[in-house]
Amino acid sequence: MATATEESARRFIATLEARDWDAWTSLMTTDVVYDMPQTGERLHGRDAYLEFNRTYPGEWHLDPRRVIADGDHAVVWFAWTLRGEDGEDGSGDAQAFFDFDGQGLITHVTDFWPEPYDPPTRPAGLAFVSMDD
Amino acid sequence: MATATEESARRFIATLEARDWDAWTSLMTTDVVYDMPQTGERLHGRDAYLEFNRTYPGEWHLDPRRVIADGDHAVVWFAWTLRGEDGEDGSGDAQAFFDFDGQGLITHVTDFWPEPYDPPTRPAGLAFVSMDD
Repeated sequence: MATATEESARRFIATLEARDWDAWTSLMTTDVVYDMPQTGERLHGRDAYLEFNRTYPGEWHLDPRRVIADGDHAVVWFAWTLRGEDGEDGSGDAQAFFDFDGQGLITHVTDFWPEPYDPPTRPAGLAFVSMDD
Repeated sequence: MATATEESARRFIATLEARDWDAWTSLMTTDVVYDMPQTGERLHGRDAYLEFNRTYPGEWHLDPRRVIADGDHAVVWFAWTLRGEDGEDGSGDAQAFFDFDGQGLITHVTDFWPEPYDPPTRPAGLAFVSMDD
């Protein structure tokens, strides 16, 4: 099952990136639940989830960085870029966690969209370097 | 290998929560790299990583929500609470991604700490509900 769930998680991102909505919706159950814990929002159902993504404003792109899967769950850590309709561009890393049913269909998606923040003051002696170094 | 990496990821959180520093450091290589993409900071080495966690201010607790692992990688999605020394308390969900070497030791940790934000304006007709409903 690990291979099937990993493949499904990869296809989830790839079909989103391709705006291949038929292929994307074929990966999930009709009553899939989509959770956004950072806003506390939840969407019920494939139709609403499709409409949410299809109408999401701006030009966005997703590029998978890491896919980890076992038989019942998977995660994709992906890089995103957005060219917003309001001229506000952005980029970053995000994570999508998936639950699967016994037929390998996605029943639940939970997204996290971490934002950059300034490093807090760190204790002296801890040799932090930049990730770019 | 999936079981071993899953167990290692679980023990990473459990030994942090227990402040069992010997057990925690035994899970990783001496030259482990710790990345925090949201601040762009990187720490090199087990000693610096231990010092970072051992001296982290406030009373913090970690509770795993989901562990997903394959042979070379794992992720833990965990809930955290912090009672800060400055009286600022907090809680949320975070994710730690792990890379493993051939001996099952952690070589790389990448943390994400997503923060809550206000829901943006959503298109009319999309029936968002609260995750608490």
